[in-house]
Amino acid sequence: MKQSLNWTVGFSESPDVRPKEMVTASVPGNANIDWMIAHNLPDWKFGVNFEQYRWMEDVWWLYEARLPSITLKPDESLFFLSEGIDYCYRILLDGELLHEHEGMFSHMEIPIPADNHNGGIIQIWITPPPKDHVGKKDSSEEAAQSCKPAVSYGWDWHPRLIPSGLWCDAYLETRQDISVKNIAIDYTVSGDLQSVEVMFTADLSQSLSLEQATVTMTLYDPTGTEIARLNNAEKVILQNPKLWWCNGYGEPNLYSYEVSVYVDDIKADQKVGKIGFRKLELLMNEGVWEDDIGLPCSRNHAPMTLTLNNVPVFAKGSNWVNPEVFTGTITRNTYLPLIKLAKDANFNLLRCWGGAIVNKDSFFELCDEHGIMVWQDFPLACNDYRNSSHYLKILEQEATAIVKRIKHHACLVIWCGGNELFNSWSKMDDQSLALRLLNKICYEHDPYRPFLSTTPIDGVAHGNYLFRYKDGNEVYQAMPSLKFTAYTEFGVPSISNISCLKAVADLSDIFPLKKNDVTIAHHAFSAWGSDDMQWACLDVIEDYFGEADTLEQLIEWSQWLQGEGYKCIYEEARRQKPYCSMALNWCYNEAWPTIANNALINYPAEPKKSYFDVIASCRNSLISAKIPKFSWHGGETLSFELWLLNDGISPVEAGHADLEAELDGTVYNLGSWSYAKTEANTNVKGITVSYVLPKLDSTGFKKLKLIIKAGELSSKYRLLYKAS
Amino acid sequence: MKQSLNWTVGFSESPDVRPKEMVTASVPGNANIDWMIAHNLPDWKFGVNFEQYRWMEDVWWLYEARLPSITLKPDESLFFLSEGIDYCYRILLDGELLHEHEGMFSHMEIPIPADNHNGGIIQIWITPPPKDHVGKKDSSEEAAQSCKPAVSYGWDWHPRLIPSGLWCDAYLETRQDISVKNIAIDYTVSGDLQSVEVMFTADLSQSLSLEQATVTMTLYDPTGTEIARLNNAEKVILQNPKLWWCNGYGEPNLYSYEVSVYVDDIKADQKVGKIGFRKLELLMNEGVWEDDIGLPCSRNHAPMTLTLNNVPVFAKGSNWVNPEVFTGTITRNTYLPLIKLAKDANFNLLRCWGGAIVNKDSFFELCDEHGIMVWQDFPLACNDYRNSSHYLKILEQEATAIVKRIKHHACLVIWCGGNELFNSWSKMDDQSLALRLLNKICYEHDPYRPFLSTTPIDGVAHGNYLFRYKDGNEVYQAMPSLKFTAYTEFGVPSISNISCLKAVADLSDIFPLKKNDVTIAHHAFSAWGSDDMQWACLDVIEDYFGEADTLEQLIEWSQWLQGEGYKCIYEEARRQKPYCSMALNWCYNEAWPTIANNALINYPAEPKKSYFDVIASCRNSLISAKIPKFSWHGGETLSFELWLLNDGISPVEAGHADLEAELDGTVYNLGSWSYAKTEANTNVKGITVSYVLPKLDSTGFKKLKLIIKAGELSSKYRLLYKAS
Repeated sequence: MKQSLNWTVGFSESPDVRPKEMVTASVPGNANIDWMIAHNLPDWKFGVNFEQYRWMEDVWWLYEARLPSITLKPDESLFFLSEGIDYCYRILLDGELLHEHEGMFSHMEIPIPADNHNGGIIQIWITPPPKDHVGKKDSSEEAAQSCKPAVSYGWDWHPRLIPSGLWCDAYLETRQDISVKNIAIDYTVSGDLQSVEVMFTADLSQSLSLEQATVTMTLYDPTGTEIARLNNAEKVILQNPKLWWCNGYGEPNLYSYEVSVYVDDIKADQKVGKIGFRKLELLMNEGVWEDDIGLPCSRNHAPMTLTLNNVPVFAKGSNWVNPEVFTGTITRNTYLPLIKLAKDANFNLLRCWGGAIVNKDSFFELCDEHGIMVWQDFPLACNDYRNSSHYLKILEQEATAIVKRIKHHACLVIWCGGNELFNSWSKMDDQSLALRLLNKICYEHDPYRPFLSTTPIDGVAHGNYLFRYKDGNEVYQAMPSLKFTAYTEFGVPSISNISCLKAVADLSDIFPLKKNDVTIAHHAFSAWGSDDMQWACLDVIEDYFGEADTLEQLIEWSQWLQGEGYKCIYEEARRQKPYCSMALNWCYNEAWPTIANNALINYPAEPKKSYFDVIASCRNSLISAKIPKFSWHGGETLSFELWLLNDGISPVEAGHADLEAELDGTVYNLGSWSYAKTEANTNVKGITVSYVLPKLDSTGFKKLKLIIKAGELSSKYRLLYKAS
Repeated sequence: MKQSLNWTVGFSESPDVRPKEMVTASVPGNANIDWMIAHNLPDWKFGVNFEQYRWMEDVWWLYEARLPSITLKPDESLFFLSEGIDYCYRILLDGELLHEHEGMFSHMEIPIPADNHNGGIIQIWITPPPKDHVGKKDSSEEAAQSCKPAVSYGWDWHPRLIPSGLWCDAYLETRQDISVKNIAIDYTVSGDLQSVEVMFTADLSQSLSLEQATVTMTLYDPTGTEIARLNNAEKVILQNPKLWWCNGYGEPNLYSYEVSVYVDDIKADQKVGKIGFRKLELLMNEGVWEDDIGLPCSRNHAPMTLTLNNVPVFAKGSNWVNPEVFTGTITRNTYLPLIKLAKDANFNLLRCWGGAIVNKDSFFELCDEHGIMVWQDFPLACNDYRNSSHYLKILEQEATAIVKRIKHHACLVIWCGGNELFNSWSKMDDQSLALRLLNKICYEHDPYRPFLSTTPIDGVAHGNYLFRYKDGNEVYQAMPSLKFTAYTEFGVPSISNISCLKAVADLSDIFPLKKNDVTIAHHAFSAWGSDDMQWACLDVIEDYFGEADTLEQLIEWSQWLQGEGYKCIYEEARRQKPYCSMALNWCYNEAWPTIANNALINYPAEPKKSYFDVIASCRNSLISAKIPKFSWHGGETLSFELWLLNDGISPVEAGHADLEAELDGTVYNLGSWSYAKTEANTNVKGITVSYVLPKLDSTGFKKLKLIIKAGELSSKYRLLYKAS
């Protein structure tokens, strides 16, 4: 039985000095937010208010709770449990040190001695966040010797705000002597998918041996029908299993189980859970072994094709980042709308980026239920996580806790050591002990789940993050010239929605958009500390469209570029299938309201226009136009290739597409394409269309719509037209 | 106490049928050779006689020995020990099965029950060699599900001959109850190399606890002077340690130790050994992080610079293969001349290739003593070692045995998963469980030794294996156009020495050299099953020199090309330092007499001419000419760059080089170069020399010697001159 505590929190310059003031604390939550509420601090998301929160990273926070009066039965014990405390802490009971701990992802449990059951005071002193001093001060380099998510130290879409506190639940638990734990359900799907062999094991609490009790598992199919009951260490073979599929490929079927302990025919304990059965492999992309690397040669590329239940999946998705700066405030309700939007976007995979937290359980439960595959980075990103023995010890503890906590989820498809570690801005490499350790941990606890040392690896691309590159190339020219096995990060920025901007500042302070403290802080300019990476990209917008008269117009143009840019990239990556097997844009969501960035969805869960463009590009089946550029002139020959893109497990029947251009209210007939039946999981290149654009008598730009009318396969592109 | 046994061996079609005949067996040795000797079979190395040995791979071999009469004292026990049996076997004692085993690298020990001490019969039934049936029959693909070295199944310089037998020692051992085992000496060299912290631990035989006995280690410095005595689990810090250095960088200093067990002040057991202290890292090559990989980007290259005692070492060396087809016959005396030749060649590293055996202990002892660093592949090569649970189990057992057996050697600098596994002819990849397992085993038992999944990896090159490529480029043009971090295989073939050819066939059957059964079997032609890879390269020789009149002439020309080809490659790889850090030719030695291949040294240990050319190119310091091509014409401008190449830890003082060409007995003065002082471990590019070659009135070719006279830095190149 679980019992919450009434917590208070306060801060001090030193753990030897009691805080002057204690305020009510929410658990799970963050001390920073508790203090904000108690003291009516200005909204940290607005303007540069967050700077008023910066002092919080330099203090010790004390959480305190008085144990309620608890009377235990003779066969009961009392424990204090924490599912995660951010980040480094000591736990005291009535002034006596019970436990010291570093790491926010490992659970902790402490037996409470009988003397302290009633009225004892439990205290948790949280150390100021870790700061490695080898790297640059006030930068994410300070995260390089800890498992604290690096993003909190500042990133190009995230303010520097480092949360502290009981970010996951912490409570008392009354336990009976008889309890079941360490439930493990191993299964093997047969090669032909016609059966699954399920084996279940569990341990009992120490006071009881497996001989004295009966432990059984009852298994229910996705409709809730009981289909098997088996004893500890027994196996059962299920015929015609309903396999778990990712979005777009089938239903994310989940079975339920109930593990019960009987002593003398009386049920003494019970645990329930869900499990999805699927066959998962990461196989070599088609065409890689045929790459002629000649002699002298290096290696061929690494495999990047996720294969689910024998079907190679084209991974369409995005990079997930913290949905809140103060991660303790995240609940299932934070995740739910975002996961629903991912499913609606026709995504089947989210890469949980290594600079962020490893999400709470409800995230993985929702992904299980919605058929969203999860690529999970360990908490390393863009730093040299050096081989100190202290770091390796904490990493081993935290990574082991992470693997054990989430490995049973059907949605989890890839473990990855972390983000961009084999690049010059991180300077880790194949010899880094941290990454060799992560390989070892995953091999030991979860050998059949694919493991990548980092991303990008050989053959995989990160970047670029712009509609038009510094060299003048647009995504339209850049993408077709590439040959990668997976695009696991690519971005096109845009300015945020009005409602999001209102959360940043008074709109009159945002438009006309200029470089100032607020617009820099919210990433419109100098997002990477220089103007090289700035997300407003006003120069590019002006080049195409001229100067905007209103904020609404600026947003429309910016999101126009973002939407068409993303359409171009997703669809071109899909055309490169099967050599290419993944397209994941950077990034999906954001942790606070930005003025501009690469995200598809504004904080907290509001899609930008481009989100809807991406939905269309990520449909399993569509007719896609391969367009050579964005901006066209009167008299020029508009030319594009047609492709029928078909992911998933269904063929597309033969049909007919009518092609039109719409310009200045006039519709021009560009011909038609009769396409043959296209097999499942196959792309077909179709006709090339050419059409001389009319010379209109106009100044400025016009929208040139390219329209493919083909029922459910229809597509639309919004290009730019200038008379001359 | 160790006691040998008198073994006999015979074969049978089935383990249920006793061999018709038993013959004397040598242990260590191979059944194949025992049978050859007993039956006077024709020399397997000559002609195609080896085909008469092929049946041996299909039979069961039975080894048998009678236990001698042994009287044990009350505190003694008797064991049967084997240090390695090739490959899969069952051990019976008086007809009763004692042990079943797969794998030739793991030791095995069995207690002998008191009943059998006198006159008991020990039998070892060896199964026919493993053959995986997924790949091509009669090919090395049959080795893909075992830890049996793949080379025995046939390779482009190795006949198909698969040894069986007690290839390592097998004997009885009388053990006292009191004995010391699992001696582990861990050490850390301080960052400034001024001290080394040494810690020693050991276990005692089960019958004795560490409390009942005193276990001490006495440490002697390289001169034999006692310098420390410490108890179990104690640490000692040695000041100014004499570190172990590789050849060319310093002395390979080895300390000695003696571990003794005292019970009641009486010495009950003692073990001795040697240890070399050195600081070892595999660091990123200079320039790799500066590679502009732009955006979108993949990863940067992997680190390949071995750094010994803080000094980046340019690894000059070769690829070691089995020195005998019948590996049971290998002894310290087999290794000794080859290791001496490696040292004399100015080599500092041998890569022990994964298709071969992992060598016997004496190999590593000799490399320790001679300062030859060892890169050790695990026994995987050019196959898809698939993830069957049986294979992974045997691999784990064998790899763990290998790591534990040799990890204490100072010479050992790299663990590598195996040969060319990430290439299309193998089709393994980053997800292969075998390689993830090897990484895990090395991390667990030997975390600070560098580990590579395979070679080549990202940035590393294998190939080419010819003086002139199929595209017409010579090594002179090809090498300077490359930019790799390490050349871990490259080859230039030649025809073997006369004495070696005499061991192959009557010379009258070898010259004129034509394609027939013998010349194909001994790799002159169709070495890879097609004419694409053939090591005689008669067409290239004829192109440069015309048709040879004698075998001696043919050999001279062929070894001329090999020698100059290797000079070009080693020296160009060195010019590419520090971006490049390794040059290892394919291959060093050979397992039987070939007619032609890439080796520097003919079987068993006879250098070819090219060996001596390589000595010159691998001196720590030399003046090297970067020459654009091999063949020159009268009137043409001979042009070359001069470089001062300096590896090692000493600077080269300023000096003067005189440059000459010698042609048809006449010496031409090409000028001189006064070079400045060159720091340790630094190359300097010097002047470019141009000289118009005289037009001689001659037909055919002449030798054009390019001579750099600069004392110990002098170099010589033998080019080709044709009048027109």
